[in-house]
Amino acid sequence: MAFLIFVWKIIIKERGSGEMAISKKVKGTLIGASWVRRMFEVGDELKRIHGEENVYDFSLGNPNLEPPPSLKKALKELADHPIVGMHRYMANSGYIETRRAIADYLKEESGLPFTENHVIMTVGAAGGLNVTFKSILDEGDEVIVPSPYFMEFKFYIDNNGGEIRLVETHEDFTLNLDEIEKAIGEKTKAILINSPNNPTGVIYSRESLEKLGQLLKRKSQELGRTIYLISDEAYRRIVYDGIKLPNFFHHYPHTIRVTSHSKDLSLPGERIGYVAVSPLCEEADELIGALIFANRVLGFVNAPALMQRLVAPLQRNSVHVRDYEENRDLFYNALTSFGYQVVKPQGAFYLFPKAMIDDDLAFVQELQSKRILTVPGRGFGKPGYFRIAYAVERRKIKGALPGFKEVAETFRTK
Amino acid sequence: MAFLIFVWKIIIKERGSGEMAISKKVKGTLIGASWVRRMFEVGDELKRIHGEENVYDFSLGNPNLEPPPSLKKALKELADHPIVGMHRYMANSGYIETRRAIADYLKEESGLPFTENHVIMTVGAAGGLNVTFKSILDEGDEVIVPSPYFMEFKFYIDNNGGEIRLVETHEDFTLNLDEIEKAIGEKTKAILINSPNNPTGVIYSRESLEKLGQLLKRKSQELGRTIYLISDEAYRRIVYDGIKLPNFFHHYPHTIRVTSHSKDLSLPGERIGYVAVSPLCEEADELIGALIFANRVLGFVNAPALMQRLVAPLQRNSVHVRDYEENRDLFYNALTSFGYQVVKPQGAFYLFPKAMIDDDLAFVQELQSKRILTVPGRGFGKPGYFRIAYAVERRKIKGALPGFKEVAETFRTK
Repeated sequence: MAFLIFVWKIIIKERGSGEMAISKKVKGTLIGASWVRRMFEVGDELKRIHGEENVYDFSLGNPNLEPPPSLKKALKELADHPIVGMHRYMANSGYIETRRAIADYLKEESGLPFTENHVIMTVGAAGGLNVTFKSILDEGDEVIVPSPYFMEFKFYIDNNGGEIRLVETHEDFTLNLDEIEKAIGEKTKAILINSPNNPTGVIYSRESLEKLGQLLKRKSQELGRTIYLISDEAYRRIVYDGIKLPNFFHHYPHTIRVTSHSKDLSLPGERIGYVAVSPLCEEADELIGALIFANRVLGFVNAPALMQRLVAPLQRNSVHVRDYEENRDLFYNALTSFGYQVVKPQGAFYLFPKAMIDDDLAFVQELQSKRILTVPGRGFGKPGYFRIAYAVERRKIKGALPGFKEVAETFRTK
Repeated sequence: MAFLIFVWKIIIKERGSGEMAISKKVKGTLIGASWVRRMFEVGDELKRIHGEENVYDFSLGNPNLEPPPSLKKALKELADHPIVGMHRYMANSGYIETRRAIADYLKEESGLPFTENHVIMTVGAAGGLNVTFKSILDEGDEVIVPSPYFMEFKFYIDNNGGEIRLVETHEDFTLNLDEIEKAIGEKTKAILINSPNNPTGVIYSRESLEKLGQLLKRKSQELGRTIYLISDEAYRRIVYDGIKLPNFFHHYPHTIRVTSHSKDLSLPGERIGYVAVSPLCEEADELIGALIFANRVLGFVNAPALMQRLVAPLQRNSVHVRDYEENRDLFYNALTSFGYQVVKPQGAFYLFPKAMIDDDLAFVQELQSKRILTVPGRGFGKPGYFRIAYAVERRKIKGALPGFKEVAETFRTK
């Protein structure tokens, strides 16, 4: 118990009060800031105490797979034969060659007339989302987000003057179109959809996207202006069971894809992603101008130059997704056999089971006593659940399963 | 004349009106957005018409020197012997090894007890400034900026709810402490100083920093809270005439250094920099917590991983600054001999001469008729001047001098 108290002290550590000169707004949000990052930090502390090998850290979605060999080869090639000027500034939207490679891929994938002008290279999807919100939001505008959701979205929207408007999903975490319709109003500027979803692993079906597209068209018409559909596709290539991810661009013209190569090419630390605006979007030109401007003035300036070069030819590549799928199978089958209730994920690398007691924080603490790190559902706007990130070595999962079983038995016998 | 009109059309091109759904605020700022970037784009167009060789582009501070061989070697080493996990997420503040290397350097340089905890790795200095403003500003807080100034500062402050408060410098662009004192009031949260300065190339003297430090101490006491000194040192290693750059950390405890390796290691496209908080700053802990939080939620997440590794051991390295100094000498001597009035820069790679007519835009257009690209002073809050960025190949400067001479003669005979 001693280490738990110790660890908990770290978690609830609040910084000294006194007369502080930092932003009051930031100060107010710092404390409840990020459960994911907090658990990551607790994990570091536990690892120091028990040794890395003896801690089962499923807190952060930090891909364990290495980038594909093609990327390593491209890096070596460039290091061996550096190009003069390859580290200099380029246009704020990125290298034309990279944008063209992505546009070609998007064209092939969607059948739509994408050109390099529809693509802006960004500092990951997190950068891309901030750039997108800056481009479209004015003070008080609302962005609808289905919940549970990746809580950083709230900050990205708030940074740029907007307000998040959460809508519940169904029990199985699929889109609840009635709730979305109810939430759309005068202030609605966009809806942000994340599929495959973090934290649930759910993929929204073609049918639901079709209906969503129809709803947005109707509502845009009623409002006399465009509601944007922002599709966060950070996990777009991490898809299982042979499922083909429905293409958002097919169902609504005013669609903005925000994505990165953090997961498909395992480059999260390198901050390389892009924003793509549908060629069917009526305001494409103006929107693209705003995105490029936002990329500049928000201080990103441009996506990292070297990585832009490396990812250009790898648009059809990805890490060995089957590894994640096997992790899912192992984890999902074991957890359900222990009595956990969990929606089977079809993509991403998360499981979002029900906690066996109402208090997800207490449940997560119980798992910690088995040296298992997960994130409470409240960190995703959904208390009573917890998130497991399983982009980890298989033996970590195998090592943790007895702990999951013991905790399940504890609560079953209570 | 024909091409000038053509070029001008590009410059004043405004995007279509109609019922647009992008941010009204962004739309309002898009048009007058950046003279530097506009001139950069005009340059691209001129190059297409006349051929790259025949355009003298001094618009953008895009270093022509290649990174030092040590950096290229480090990149090759890493590409040849990749480290498992080297592209993954790390702590939002960056690798501890990189922060420690920088802290060691800062300690040596300043004699102050810097540790890795005082350093946050950022997406360049532009990222670092946004992170800093997010951390300290609340709605309506003011940041004092001596003018002429790098106009992006205005956006960085505005992005994070603050307001820029410009103060004039002296005729020779040195700090006017009386003006600064007059500007400090209830809303003042920070002063942002950039030395060596963009666009003037001026370095603020030790004496003026000492006086500034005293002023800020007195004013902080009067206000009963800290006024921060933010020191943008993007050009800190680009210093001439054997001058030693005064150390801001010595003159005021509440100092935040924001810098990057864009210029000293010629890596502007890679977006790698850092923020360092003075160990003497009373609120250092809380401020650092806020900076790390801001780095995360603004969507930077962390500075690019690969570059963090590469720059760590190169804190005492830089490009061959003597090349820039020779450019300055050549340019400065020629311009003054043609009759231009210009303060001799002691650092950075800019000259900021007086335009020979009041209308700096007309003057810059006149230079364009000689295929010379510069930026009007209004792009730096100082009409009647123009900026020359001379981090270019020597032969470009030599090629442009006759044009500068002809324009000078045109206006002298008028």
